[in-house]
Amino acid sequence: MKIVCSQAELSKGVNIVSKAVPTRTTMAILECILIDASSDEIKLIANDMEIAIETVIEGRVEERGIIAIDARFFGDVVRNLPNNDVTIETNDKLQTTITCEKALFSITGKSGEDFPNMPMIQRNQPIVISQFTLRETIRQTIFSTSDSDKIKILTGELFEISGNKLKVVSLDGHRVSIRNILLKDSYEDKKVIVPGKTLQEIRKIISGSTEDNTNIFITDNHIIFEFDKTVVVSRLLEGDYFNIDQMISTDYETKVKINKKDLYSSITRSTLMVKEEDKKPIIMNVEDNKMNLKISSFFGKFDESIDISKEGKNLQIGFNPKFFIDALNVIDDEEVTIYMLDYKNPCMIKNDNEDYIYVILPVNIRES
Amino acid sequence: MKIVCSQAELSKGVNIVSKAVPTRTTMAILECILIDASSDEIKLIANDMEIAIETVIEGRVEERGIIAIDARFFGDVVRNLPNNDVTIETNDKLQTTITCEKALFSITGKSGEDFPNMPMIQRNQPIVISQFTLRETIRQTIFSTSDSDKIKILTGELFEISGNKLKVVSLDGHRVSIRNILLKDSYEDKKVIVPGKTLQEIRKIISGSTEDNTNIFITDNHIIFEFDKTVVVSRLLEGDYFNIDQMISTDYETKVKINKKDLYSSITRSTLMVKEEDKKPIIMNVEDNKMNLKISSFFGKFDESIDISKEGKNLQIGFNPKFFIDALNVIDDEEVTIYMLDYKNPCMIKNDNEDYIYVILPVNIRES
Repeated sequence: MKIVCSQAELSKGVNIVSKAVPTRTTMAILECILIDASSDEIKLIANDMEIAIETVIEGRVEERGIIAIDARFFGDVVRNLPNNDVTIETNDKLQTTITCEKALFSITGKSGEDFPNMPMIQRNQPIVISQFTLRETIRQTIFSTSDSDKIKILTGELFEISGNKLKVVSLDGHRVSIRNILLKDSYEDKKVIVPGKTLQEIRKIISGSTEDNTNIFITDNHIIFEFDKTVVVSRLLEGDYFNIDQMISTDYETKVKINKKDLYSSITRSTLMVKEEDKKPIIMNVEDNKMNLKISSFFGKFDESIDISKEGKNLQIGFNPKFFIDALNVIDDEEVTIYMLDYKNPCMIKNDNEDYIYVILPVNIRES
Repeated sequence: MKIVCSQAELSKGVNIVSKAVPTRTTMAILECILIDASSDEIKLIANDMEIAIETVIEGRVEERGIIAIDARFFGDVVRNLPNNDVTIETNDKLQTTITCEKALFSITGKSGEDFPNMPMIQRNQPIVISQFTLRETIRQTIFSTSDSDKIKILTGELFEISGNKLKVVSLDGHRVSIRNILLKDSYEDKKVIVPGKTLQEIRKIISGSTEDNTNIFITDNHIIFEFDKTVVVSRLLEGDYFNIDQMISTDYETKVKINKKDLYSSITRSTLMVKEEDKKPIIMNVEDNKMNLKISSFFGKFDESIDISKEGKNLQIGFNPKFFIDALNVIDDEEVTIYMLDYKNPCMIKNDNEDYIYVILPVNIRES
C-alpha cells in the first residue's frame, strides 16, 4: 500500500474515527485504526464492536492495500507532523513508513485482514436532519441519560419517529428531557433506543452546520448516521422504553415566567452551600412577582429573590439544584416558563410549542 | 466588621492570596483567608507558614474588624456573585453575611485573632526588577528545579546578586538552567535559595508588565516580593548551593547554529517513539550542514535531518529528548547555538551575551 494525503486531512480523519477506538479491549486489533486503500479511495476505520466509524479522506492511492496501525501512536504522529504532504507506505511484512518532509517514522503495522469489517447494512430511505439540529438535540438531552448500567435502556435515548415528527427522550428516574423536532419529510413510524455513548461521540464529530445534513438509517439492530464523508454505525439498545406520555401531565396550578440567566446564576450560587452528596434541596417559594430561593446546610444559609411573573397559586417546593442547573444550562431562551402542580408533583420547564420539555421530580420537603 | 467592595476587586484579591492557602494542613485556620479591615484599608491575607501573601483591595471600610473565612468556600462564592458591589459584614459571634444584589450568604467565620501574622521583616533598600523580567526568568528556569526532596536546595533556585547583576540558577542533576539579568542599579552581594513553589506562585500572580516593577527584599531567612498592591513573604531554603562556575566550561569542539522551531518540532516528534520511562536517548549526528536525529525503540524507528550551520568537528551524541525540549520550549530566539565538546561532556545552549545558558548532560551512547 502507498498513499499520499495532506497532514491536515489525515489529522481530521484520525480525529473522527478515534472516537470508536475502545479505551480497553481484549482484542488488540481494535486498538488500531484501519487504513483501507483497497479501492481508489482512502478510508480510515475504527470499530469497538458497539460503534464503528468510517471516514473518507482526500488523497492519492499510489498502490492499493490495507494496514492497521495502533490508533494512539498513529494519532500522536499525525498531529505532530509538519503541515505538508504525508506518505504512508507498507511492505508485505507489514513494515510501515510514515514520511513527511524530512521526518520518517518506521513501525510495524497489523494485518488489515484481521480488522473487523464495518457491519454491512442495507440502507433504505434516510431520515434527513440538519447537522445543527442533531448536535443541538443531543446536547439538550444527553445529560439526563443514566450513568448506571442497572437499567440498560436508560443509558440511551429514545428516538421516536411518527410522520414528520422526531421525538428524542432521555430519562434517569429523577427527570425527563424531551426534544420535539419537525422534519421536512414524513417517514414510517419507528421507535429505537440509541446508546448514549454513540450520541456523545457523534456530537463531538459532526460539524453542527445548519446547511449540511445527516442521513439517518434505522434497521432492527443498528442505527447509521451519515454526514460529510463519515459513516457511524451503532448497535441499538434492546428493550421497550418507558411510556413518556403517562409521565407528562398538562395540569398545573402555578405558572412562572422567569429570566433564565437570573435563575441559573442564583441556583448555581446556592449550590456553593452544599456538597453534591448532601442531597440538600433548594427551597423555592413562589409568590406574586417574586420567587425566593433558600438553601441551608452545615456551612450556613443562602437566600436570594428573583423577579418573576406568576399565574395561579403560591407554592413552596424543593428540588435537587443540579437538575435545574442541567436543564437551564441547555435552554437557549432568555425567559423560561415553569409549570407546577403542587409540592410533590413534578414540575415542567417547556416553551409554548413544546420544542423542549424538561420534567423534574421535586424533593418532598414536608417529609424531610 | 463591615466592608463594601466590587466583586471584580474582591475576586482578583482572593485569586492572588489563594496561592498561599495550603492544600493540606493540620491547622484549620490556615485553610482560611483573613480579611483584615482593622485599619482604613481592606487587606486579604493567606499564609501556609512557608509563604504568606497579602494584598490590598479597593473598597470602603464601614466598620473596622477582622475575620477569617474558609478560603475555598469564599473563593467559590466570590467568583459566582454578580458583577456588582459586595458587602461583607460580621457580628461578634463571627456570623458573617456576604450580600450582593439580592443574593445573601450567611456563614460562620473563624476568629481573625487566631490567624498567624505576616512575618514582620525589616525592609531596607529593595532590589528592583520589572515584573516582566521576573516572570520570564522564573518561566525560563523553573522547569529544571528538582521534584525530589532528597536534596532540598535543588527544589529551589539560586538568586545571586553581585553589583548590578542578578544570576538565577536551577539544576536537577541532569541539567542546569541559568539566566543572567542586568539590573538598573548596583546592590550589595547576596546569594540565597528561593523555594521553587514560591516562584511558581509568583509567576501566576504577577502581571508580567514591562512597566511595573517588583521590589525584592532579602533578609537572612526570608525573601519578600512586593508588586502592585501585593506582598509575598517566603522563607528561604537553607544550605549552600552548588558552585555553578565549575560546571560550565567554555571549551568546545563543535558549534551548531540551528532553527529553534525545527529542532523543537523534530525532537518532539521523536519522543512519540518512546515512553518517558524508557529513557531512550535521541541520537544526534552532527555533520556539515545537517544534523540527523534518530531514535529507535520497541515501537519502531524515527529519523529526521535538519539543516544547520556548523563550525568544528563532526559528532555523534545522545540526549534525553525531554531535557532538550524543556530548554528549547522557553527560549524565545528563532535560532539557537549549541556548543559541544565530545559525546560524554555536557552540551551548552546559550546566546552570545549569555542572557541564558542551558547545560544538558548527554547519555553515554557508547556504553549503552
